[in-house]
Amino acid sequence: MTNLLWPGDQRAGELMSDPTLLASMVAVESAWLDALVAAGLAPDQCTGADLAGLVHAADCELLAAESEDGGNPVIGLVALLRDRASAEVSRWIHRGLTSQDVIDTGLMLATRAIVDELMLQLAEQISALSVLATIHRGTPMVARTLTQNAVPTTFGVKAATWCNGVVDAYQQLSALAIPVQIGGAGGTLAATTELAALAGHPNPAGISVELVQSTAATLGLDLRMPWHTTRSSVTAIGDAFVGCTDAWGRIASDVVTLVRPEIAELSEPAAGNRGGSSSMPQKRNPVLSILIRRAAISAPPLGATLHTAAALANDERPDGSWHAEWETLRILARRTVVAGSQCSELLAGLEVHPAQMAKNLGNADVLGEQRVIAELVGKVPSGNYFGAVDALIDESLDRAKRIVKEHP
Amino acid sequence: MTNLLWPGDQRAGELMSDPTLLASMVAVESAWLDALVAAGLAPDQCTGADLAGLVHAADCELLAAESEDGGNPVIGLVALLRDRASAEVSRWIHRGLTSQDVIDTGLMLATRAIVDELMLQLAEQISALSVLATIHRGTPMVARTLTQNAVPTTFGVKAATWCNGVVDAYQQLSALAIPVQIGGAGGTLAATTELAALAGHPNPAGISVELVQSTAATLGLDLRMPWHTTRSSVTAIGDAFVGCTDAWGRIASDVVTLVRPEIAELSEPAAGNRGGSSSMPQKRNPVLSILIRRAAISAPPLGATLHTAAALANDERPDGSWHAEWETLRILARRTVVAGSQCSELLAGLEVHPAQMAKNLGNADVLGEQRVIAELVGKVPSGNYFGAVDALIDESLDRAKRIVKEHP
Amino acid sequence: MTNLLWPGDQRAGELMSDPTLLASMVAVESAWLDALVAAGLAPDQCTGADLAGLVHAADCELLAAESEDGGNPVIGLVALLRDRASAEVSRWIHRGLTSQDVIDTGLMLATRAIVDELMLQLAEQISALSVLATIHRGTPMVARTLTQNAVPTTFGVKAATWCNGVVDAYQQLSALAIPVQIGGAGGTLAATTELAALAGHPNPAGISVELVQSTAATLGLDLRMPWHTTRSSVTAIGDAFVGCTDAWGRIASDVVTLVRPEIAELSEPAAGNRGGSSSMPQKRNPVLSILIRRAAISAPPLGATLHTAAALANDERPDGSWHAEWETLRILARRTVVAGSQCSELLAGLEVHPAQMAKNLGNADVLGEQRVIAELVGKVPSGNYFGAVDALIDESLDRAKRIVKEHP
Amino acid sequence: MTNLLWPGDQRAGELMSDPTLLASMVAVESAWLDALVAAGLAPDQCTGADLAGLVHAADCELLAAESEDGGNPVIGLVALLRDRASAEVSRWIHRGLTSQDVIDTGLMLATRAIVDELMLQLAEQISALSVLATIHRGTPMVARTLTQNAVPTTFGVKAATWCNGVVDAYQQLSALAIPVQIGGAGGTLAATTELAALAGHPNPAGISVELVQSTAATLGLDLRMPWHTTRSSVTAIGDAFVGCTDAWGRIASDVVTLVRPEIAELSEPAAGNRGGSSSMPQKRNPVLSILIRRAAISAPPLGATLHTAAALANDERPDGSWHAEWETLRILARRTVVAGSQCSELLAGLEVHPAQMAKNLGNADVLGEQRVIAELVGKVPSGNYFGAVDALIDESLDRAKRIVKEHP
Repeated sequence: MTNLLWPGDQRAGELMSDPTLLASMVAVESAWLDALVAAGLAPDQCTGADLAGLVHAADCELLAAESEDGGNPVIGLVALLRDRASAEVSRWIHRGLTSQDVIDTGLMLATRAIVDELMLQLAEQISALSVLATIHRGTPMVARTLTQNAVPTTFGVKAATWCNGVVDAYQQLSALAIPVQIGGAGGTLAATTELAALAGHPNPAGISVELVQSTAATLGLDLRMPWHTTRSSVTAIGDAFVGCTDAWGRIASDVVTLVRPEIAELSEPAAGNRGGSSSMPQKRNPVLSILIRRAAISAPPLGATLHTAAALANDERPDGSWHAEWETLRILARRTVVAGSQCSELLAGLEVHPAQMAKNLGNADVLGEQRVIAELVGKVPSGNYFGAVDALIDESLDRAKRIVKEHP
Repeated sequence: MTNLLWPGDQRAGELMSDPTLLASMVAVESAWLDALVAAGLAPDQCTGADLAGLVHAADCELLAAESEDGGNPVIGLVALLRDRASAEVSRWIHRGLTSQDVIDTGLMLATRAIVDELMLQLAEQISALSVLATIHRGTPMVARTLTQNAVPTTFGVKAATWCNGVVDAYQQLSALAIPVQIGGAGGTLAATTELAALAGHPNPAGISVELVQSTAATLGLDLRMPWHTTRSSVTAIGDAFVGCTDAWGRIASDVVTLVRPEIAELSEPAAGNRGGSSSMPQKRNPVLSILIRRAAISAPPLGATLHTAAALANDERPDGSWHAEWETLRILARRTVVAGSQCSELLAGLEVHPAQMAKNLGNADVLGEQRVIAELVGKVPSGNYFGAVDALIDESLDRAKRIVKEHP
Repeated sequence: MTNLLWPGDQRAGELMSDPTLLASMVAVESAWLDALVAAGLAPDQCTGADLAGLVHAADCELLAAESEDGGNPVIGLVALLRDRASAEVSRWIHRGLTSQDVIDTGLMLATRAIVDELMLQLAEQISALSVLATIHRGTPMVARTLTQNAVPTTFGVKAATWCNGVVDAYQQLSALAIPVQIGGAGGTLAATTELAALAGHPNPAGISVELVQSTAATLGLDLRMPWHTTRSSVTAIGDAFVGCTDAWGRIASDVVTLVRPEIAELSEPAAGNRGGSSSMPQKRNPVLSILIRRAAISAPPLGATLHTAAALANDERPDGSWHAEWETLRILARRTVVAGSQCSELLAGLEVHPAQMAKNLGNADVLGEQRVIAELVGKVPSGNYFGAVDALIDESLDRAKRIVKEHP
Repeated sequence: MTNLLWPGDQRAGELMSDPTLLASMVAVESAWLDALVAAGLAPDQCTGADLAGLVHAADCELLAAESEDGGNPVIGLVALLRDRASAEVSRWIHRGLTSQDVIDTGLMLATRAIVDELMLQLAEQISALSVLATIHRGTPMVARTLTQNAVPTTFGVKAATWCNGVVDAYQQLSALAIPVQIGGAGGTLAATTELAALAGHPNPAGISVELVQSTAATLGLDLRMPWHTTRSSVTAIGDAFVGCTDAWGRIASDVVTLVRPEIAELSEPAAGNRGGSSSMPQKRNPVLSILIRRAAISAPPLGATLHTAAALANDERPDGSWHAEWETLRILARRTVVAGSQCSELLAGLEVHPAQMAKNLGNADVLGEQRVIAELVGKVPSGNYFGAVDALIDESLDRAKRIVKEHP
């Protein structure tokens, strides 16, 4: 996938693309059918039905166009699967499911891949930032507050505080549940319970619950009982994605300041045509940071939309708010992956200019507080004013180390 | 275009699609080149250069992928045009322009088509609502406030107040300026002024201004001097789009209530498979209203993103906020067109059930206020309590008529 | 009013404070009662009833606490007015109105004062910016794009483009309708129509419409028929407020960059303790710009809330979305006034440092484009590269002049 | 505190009011001073300095007005404390701190009280919902999807799914870290490190870290190294608050539907004047649900503002985004407490009407799916179609039980 108006979109590859989601939805139907067979509700002839082989990326367009009739693409998908499957399999496809089950669980499956990718990116960045914090532990620079020179610091501390934000984003992602969502027509698992009852099972509801469990296991999703109108899983995922763009946006906001020619303490990695201009040959623009900031500016309102949708979820399937989630989640997810990839590239190749940092520090009056403190105790100021930078860096490196270990 | 996660997306056709935007950007380059020739700055050999013929929808993908280097697709587009044009034309392409000029003006050109389509939709809806307000001028129903029965009203008044909202949306759209944005590298029109100066023009800056004027005229856009960091045109457009989805969302919010089986005063138009369910054969879901509400719920945060971007616009080209606008505007624009088309269909075929309205009204105690008023003046209540419904309907029809006249 | 967490809040004085809104709501009741008397519906004894004298700022707290019962403060207010008025007046207070009429129209009355204040602020700023654009018409500085040096410009052009944004905000405000909203219990003006009918009026609905007209005239508000669920007036006002903070936010975003010590082309006005630090005696922070940016960052989501509320407005009085508007509008309105006042102060005293601008320009390579252009036509570059700055400034000054004239 | 435009505001009492925040900020200064003494950096005479006694609620107004100079109220607060304290104490107040430390940590202290209150509310609601789910385990009603009748369910399941959302909100809150934020002027703890160095401590940075630790312990806050520009703690808190309003908003969205007179399956608790109308004596409006929905509609954009602020956090103290957080967090926090209190009242007194539920179910065709399923296996449909409702309720009650246990 590419997007003329979202440069870098291709970095997200086919994650959450229409074909990917189609495949995810088919995987849900397939796992469910397998579960029906395993539970003895659907006949053995359905074993190994290759539903995935029945649909193709090329089906997306027609399914998408038809999806308006039912308000979602599942009705068309089920019709298509039933049409293409063998007669016996056909009869059993989608039994016990409702559209929402397939869409929600399909989205979660695609989200799982997004989250995995993001965690890899974050782990890479944590490594890169640990190196920067270590190397520049003692590289002096100005700490700036409210745009003005404040006190001395080191670039290592800045990298360490960036790292803290990235570690926070990692931990938020890793705490996410990405659950299966299967409840049937009204969230009561009635159809499979009926099937089990009619088949004479002593505990038909228990069979339904087991079907959900085994489908979750097959798909590699977390188990959760139906959450058709309890959308906290979706909002938590959205918040975690925005948590990522916050962490990167803040780094990029520092970079766009520090690469200004009058400050010139950092440069973006130089690579090929990156940063060129259509009219000014001499320019080198901090294009990675700019594109990351773009994502960070536009992510929070998308997260808010997911919350608004959650708050308006009425009945046993909401009348519009649920439908607002899907594409919002996709846009947010892909943009997060793109920004993450750009941030990894940015941090891996970030050029640090210690001499310029030293020069700017030299030009700044940053010892006002130290003078006040020394006067307070009637002493001569000590030889430096870097405070606890080493301790802060060490603490940050410790947090980082635990995560990097998990991603060898 | 279709979108598996945004059912109905195909209603927006190719409006603002990647190929459409590519063509828009080429149209900008082309109009500008023509202007350079007409002003005598570029040589006559450039006359009639068919830039549009040099690029194809198939170029979108590569241009999009390359766009990350410069942060936008124009550098790649200019390279491609120069590569494919004749040598003489090639030398003159994009002279005096900067990427932002091409993107901003290209987006405005595509926006112009969106706005035209929306105004047609709104005019259709105003016609349909005028008919509903006229036919049901005297169809009694309950006025509900805070979910409870309040006083009697007529469905004609409801249609008239819906119409007022749609008329407001129309007027907001029709007041929009959709301007050309051309300022050159730093917003000073320096390159063309230099060209004119070197060519010996007595008023070289005047030539630059005329180039902008004639480009606006060629493209059918409003004239405005460079607004590279004054983004009020973009926010006004976004606000007007959200104004549309507000007007429709409010109608749809009424419809999803009034089609509930216990109320049953309205039905969505019955057509083909619309409103079907994947598991419950008996259902008929108000799918148009649901999809309209989806758009209405997700539009305001997109409008907000455009404002945030406008507020953060620094320097002579912002470091991220500008880049956040493009895709946000596109998503908002296309969704607005889709929702408008759905609302037109909804209103054209809306089924009104006067008998059920009368029945619900009969079951409701809605004369409490009338009793109080009559007691206040010591009289017997009058024969009805419909207030000024006719006057309100007439006033709304008058507003509507003026607009319908413009769209025969 | 002051607010410990919103420094500068006192600049908005009592605009839209609880006491002001209480007075506004009483003014609505009062104007309506006068209209009833003038129309012969209420008895002459109600003439000149001094409702405003019956309530006091001290009533706010109790009314606010009681407001939860009815969901709004009007029930309590009406009870209080009736309790304190003479018997004859008491019987006629609020007849024909509903809570929503009083709240909506009361809010519009308070909004009117906000808009008037904002237009004064904007006119002041337009004057100040016109002066800056004129004085610094020829003050050279670097045009920066994507954080990097691009081409030469002048500070006059920057001031002129700032001015263009402020003029846009002014025009958006001045185009606002700020309408009366009176519709009675269900938006049908039934109670007064009943009163007129029982009194034997030949056209009782016409009397109701006249009551709305005369109330609008008394209150100095625009006329509009009931818009209880057509909330476009509110969203337009919200959008216009955000339009203001966008215009100022963008100026402040430039200032926070240009006051950085390494750039140092601007300083905020030096006044008293402004810009001091609690720990660093040497600092001078650009506190006005920082506080303006704060407002600009937080305004767009508030505007979005108004739109969401508008889109969800169902029935004849919505079940929650209407209630979300009031405080959102107030917060947005007051913050806009505060930011406007801060921006006026900022622009009135902005210190411009031409020597530093020249120095930064001298250090920058900004003639790359000019060289390319000159090569293109095989000539030696002209003596400067300021393009059409004078023409752009003149065009901006022209727009400004028309507005300044209206505010002598 | 009361708020004329936010009915119910008084439910939040003085939580996060200006006086409460003033006291919180003084508590921070006080805990820090104690830590300085305990570490031997400040003299023993400062022991037991009663800073809290030096300021009063009445100081808020002046401090707020003056806060604009420094951009925050701490400069004025420190001046006031130093002015009122004894000479020896005065000299040592605020040494090593910066404004941001006091504001951030003061806000966290006030947030701690908010979170505690919310957890109590949520636990109450979980109890109430557990009772409803248990009592109505077998109370049949219609499951509605996309506004239409779908399949049978029981009200117990609805209560259980509401409960799941509330439990999610509880768990999100209970997982929050609410940390101390102390970093000194530039986030390096330089001043106290200098003090310790000048006093001859062998590990002066270690002393600084210990000061932060002991301050956190004194204040009952979580420990975290300086997060002046790593705002994930703030966004996580905001997200958790919005998580609460989501959970409640969704309940309220169900209630406003089910109390409609045509449906009439639920009533809000009847109490005093709650739900009355200013013009229609017969009405009983679902005012609690309406006010909860109001909060749920307006919360997500406030959460988004906190994220935007986090993403824009540059330098060692940001130039506007930090300032946007404070009041946003307060508004969101107080509204969340108000909505939570209203939701507790709603759930504690919610009236359920099983007969009406049965009647609506009887009128609905909800067995379409069951017929299809029975046909599929060639059997007669079983006696009911409630699926796994008991299992789902049990699972929800289990989750609830663990939380209720913690709040005896």
